[in-house]
Amino acid sequence: MTETLSVELGDRSYPIRIGTGLLNDPAQFAPYIAGRQVCIVTNETIAPLYLKALESTLIGYQVDACVLPDGEEHKTLQTYANVLDHLMVHRHNRSTTLVALGGGVVGDVAGFAAATYQRGVAFIQVPTTLLACVDSSVGGKTAVNHPQGKNMIGAFYQPRLVLADLRTLDSLPAREYLAGIAEVVKYGIIRDASFFDWLEAHVDDLLRRDASALKHAVRTSCAVKAAVVAVDEREDGVRAILNYGHTFGHAIETLTRYEYLHGEAVAIGMVMATDLSMRAGMLDRAAGKRIKSLVAAFGLPVVPPGNITPDAMRSAMGMDKKAIDGRLRLVLARAIGDALVTERFDPGAFRDTLSAHGGLCEE
Amino acid sequence: MTETLSVELGDRSYPIRIGTGLLNDPAQFAPYIAGRQVCIVTNETIAPLYLKALESTLIGYQVDACVLPDGEEHKTLQTYANVLDHLMVHRHNRSTTLVALGGGVVGDVAGFAAATYQRGVAFIQVPTTLLACVDSSVGGKTAVNHPQGKNMIGAFYQPRLVLADLRTLDSLPAREYLAGIAEVVKYGIIRDASFFDWLEAHVDDLLRRDASALKHAVRTSCAVKAAVVAVDEREDGVRAILNYGHTFGHAIETLTRYEYLHGEAVAIGMVMATDLSMRAGMLDRAAGKRIKSLVAAFGLPVVPPGNITPDAMRSAMGMDKKAIDGRLRLVLARAIGDALVTERFDPGAFRDTLSAHGGLCEE
Repeated sequence: MTETLSVELGDRSYPIRIGTGLLNDPAQFAPYIAGRQVCIVTNETIAPLYLKALESTLIGYQVDACVLPDGEEHKTLQTYANVLDHLMVHRHNRSTTLVALGGGVVGDVAGFAAATYQRGVAFIQVPTTLLACVDSSVGGKTAVNHPQGKNMIGAFYQPRLVLADLRTLDSLPAREYLAGIAEVVKYGIIRDASFFDWLEAHVDDLLRRDASALKHAVRTSCAVKAAVVAVDEREDGVRAILNYGHTFGHAIETLTRYEYLHGEAVAIGMVMATDLSMRAGMLDRAAGKRIKSLVAAFGLPVVPPGNITPDAMRSAMGMDKKAIDGRLRLVLARAIGDALVTERFDPGAFRDTLSAHGGLCEE
Repeated sequence: MTETLSVELGDRSYPIRIGTGLLNDPAQFAPYIAGRQVCIVTNETIAPLYLKALESTLIGYQVDACVLPDGEEHKTLQTYANVLDHLMVHRHNRSTTLVALGGGVVGDVAGFAAATYQRGVAFIQVPTTLLACVDSSVGGKTAVNHPQGKNMIGAFYQPRLVLADLRTLDSLPAREYLAGIAEVVKYGIIRDASFFDWLEAHVDDLLRRDASALKHAVRTSCAVKAAVVAVDEREDGVRAILNYGHTFGHAIETLTRYEYLHGEAVAIGMVMATDLSMRAGMLDRAAGKRIKSLVAAFGLPVVPPGNITPDAMRSAMGMDKKAIDGRLRLVLARAIGDALVTERFDPGAFRDTLSAHGGLCEE
């Protein structure tokens, strides 16, 4: 059965539909396509699996496909420019609709192209990774990376529809699937203690991708995200809690040049943010231990690679978007299910967290 | 005396301030600067004239200047990327403020960078050309060109302030000044018949840049633009009348690779749109003649270059953003002061307008 959630943003509200086989149902798409032209943006890994099916579903439109190389290292201005070239060459006009078929990179690049092609065209997200289903496809953040920082170039631009066909997750490699689980765990930590409890009780079900457990995890994650985005679309405040672990994680991604999947880097980042929350006296040790244990139980990494120094982390974190006027803002946890954004934490505790998690420590 | 107009867009409303010496007054800027960092984006022609003055005015902030090459041919994704690189290299964070000091190209590129750096930072327009004062700095359209079409990549992103220091227009070369006059004439045609009358009576005053006439022209132009933008920010409807002459004009710019200044191409385009309005039976011949005469009285071009064929025009116009699902929408005039957007015009009349204004006619 297909479930529908809604992201409530006034005249930019849109549905998130979660089910199986949605990719093959023309009726799912028709109300959200603006004109007669569609450009499917996907990548070379996903295209052989689902592109034909989606093209068949979209019969009756002028459908072009723009197939990107796979990988976070291609989430660049150049790849974005290639999508725009594709739209120009195929003469897409202002009433075209871009459909992102893929994971977070495809969604972020296609979304930024949709936000800026002819100053904005219709956009539909069809996430095919767990991470994209529960996180990147929802909420309107689009971006590409700059060589000096992740997601530094982009726009807030909401899709008209998020269509999560859980059947596409069957083909997901284990490593990517687990990277998505990291963001699922995040929702428990920041906003939903009972979901965290449920996750602890369903590690095995999720590891074997039990359909019912997976659907519950996706629905609950999207519900948390939709609720947060609805009250703070442009991240002027509370939305920043969705970045739990991300400031540490982005630094790790930048410093390792995207050796880690985003979710893996976030997993390490969440453990570090949890460590800092404890050292700063906000979070009790038992809760901190439960968080680290749950991340580890899913087989996700919990420490950064040994060649990253505390100094390198500090510098990479300073350029993160979450830094306001030079001061570092971080998301910390007061309890499981209760995160907050703060600039007020003991610099000594921060230093200790970096040292405890950094290789080649000078301190 | 400084005059203030307001662009009414709810929580994104902002003032347009028109006066002399504003560039040197810190109090004009202070309320609109978001944090402690400012990046002035300007070009190599404007920098020697006004950059030092503006930097002195903004004392107390971290001020960087990003100096672009001058000319429409540099309004590209590459120049935009260079601005983003500059912001990254100088470690500008999410609370930085971009100040565009220059004409339409500088404003459009800087505005697009402001719209997309870290998903949007504060933005101030300081127009130094007449065209920028009366048109491009107001209303939130930002963009760069694609090799196949003008302004194909961009965003709607409103500035926090438009500061039109009329003293900067003293240094404007005659050709650029007149290009701006084309847009001034446009406002009379599309929305304000009495302003059109006033323009006919003040051609000489405007040609010699009489301060009082110039101020009246800028204020009235901005007032028309602000009123139109306030009711249709994202050009879903009436805002398109601001493009009078622009669909023809953009095609001329693209086909000549920006040999013409934007305002010059628009001047030709307005004459062609007026010609079509008459041929389509919407506009009486006397009004059409007045429009063409006023454009010519300012010494602006009224016919496209001889090497542009009707077929080339038609093709270049087909890719214009104003084409919806393949049908061409144009702005036509029913009377002086009354323009409308329409797809309903006699294709024969359109063909005749192209033939009458095209060199090397095959027809």
